[in-house]
Amino acid sequence: MDLFEAIKNRYSYRGEYKEIEIPIKHLKQVVEAGLQAPSGSNKQTTSFVIVNDEIILNKIREVLPKVKPIQTTSAIILCIMDKNPEQIHGNPHYEIEDCSAATENMLIAITALGYASVWLDGILRSDQIAENLGEIINLPKTKTVRIVLPIGIPTIDGPRPDKLPFDQRAWFNQYNGE
Amino acid sequence: MDLFEAIKNRYSYRGEYKEIEIPIKHLKQVVEAGLQAPSGSNKQTTSFVIVNDEIILNKIREVLPKVKPIQTTSAIILCIMDKNPEQIHGNPHYEIEDCSAATENMLIAITALGYASVWLDGILRSDQIAENLGEIINLPKTKTVRIVLPIGIPTIDGPRPDKLPFDQRAWFNQYNGE
Repeated sequence: MDLFEAIKNRYSYRGEYKEIEIPIKHLKQVVEAGLQAPSGSNKQTTSFVIVNDEIILNKIREVLPKVKPIQTTSAIILCIMDKNPEQIHGNPHYEIEDCSAATENMLIAITALGYASVWLDGILRSDQIAENLGEIINLPKTKTVRIVLPIGIPTIDGPRPDKLPFDQRAWFNQYNGE
Repeated sequence: MDLFEAIKNRYSYRGEYKEIEIPIKHLKQVVEAGLQAPSGSNKQTTSFVIVNDEIILNKIREVLPKVKPIQTTSAIILCIMDKNPEQIHGNPHYEIEDCSAATENMLIAITALGYASVWLDGILRSDQIAENLGEIINLPKTKTVRIVLPIGIPTIDGPRPDKLPFDQRAWFNQYNGE
């Protein structure tokens, strides 16, 4: 799929998925897109666990009972970063940037392959959800699950939120916003 | 360009650019890709200033004298976020994630259009560089320049840093890293 088409077609899908198996080849292709994202000082701080085993999927479903795509998906990608990232060159670390860039690459790759996903993030940071997910995938205590992406084929055409027009968020040569 | 090709071809170019003018149409297309990135709770917190005016470009060059792409580019995108972001729903804000996802979209859009860029980030956070850039583009004190992207056609084929292979950063069903 054309890059600009994939970027335009990506959206956050929060409904149920069709019952299908996602080919391993597609899952690898999505994660390869994540691996190719840039990272601060090329530290490649993000790692990935792809869950497609039904027993592990069920454990994850128990941790996120209200999230429809998680309940109905056959594959989930968990994005891992350090729990307490070290500084780089005296500057703050870039692990959130690294993880986010990798996630965006994966989201548009998911779109290009005919699936939809949703960037699950804040929900992991309450009720020990990130910690519980970490235990399920055998994560060391020095790491944390930062972002979770379910993958599947939507059963409905989900709503697209409105986006502000160009001239409310972008300007030439001088800032012209609030 | 195919999405996976753009993701694969993107790299951080730190050399000089050819002397060319970048069409406004391309600059808008790149920023449109940034606008279409997801954002936490669809808050669309990132905004963009596209600098292509020679007077403003020269002011930016004075602030970043050692950065070759900045010295030789004819267009720079500055990504803006709040200096002190507010929390969303009691969770931390997502402005760094928002800005990073938008940046990654723009980097692969830049690649697809035949240009190269580099994600300038940490360098802005010392020596008052972000503050100086903000003054140049008339940024209110509540906002900050978080990421800067020069755009141009490379004069040389720049080096690509090595990336770790799949099985050192990604695994199925259980974490298997360090």
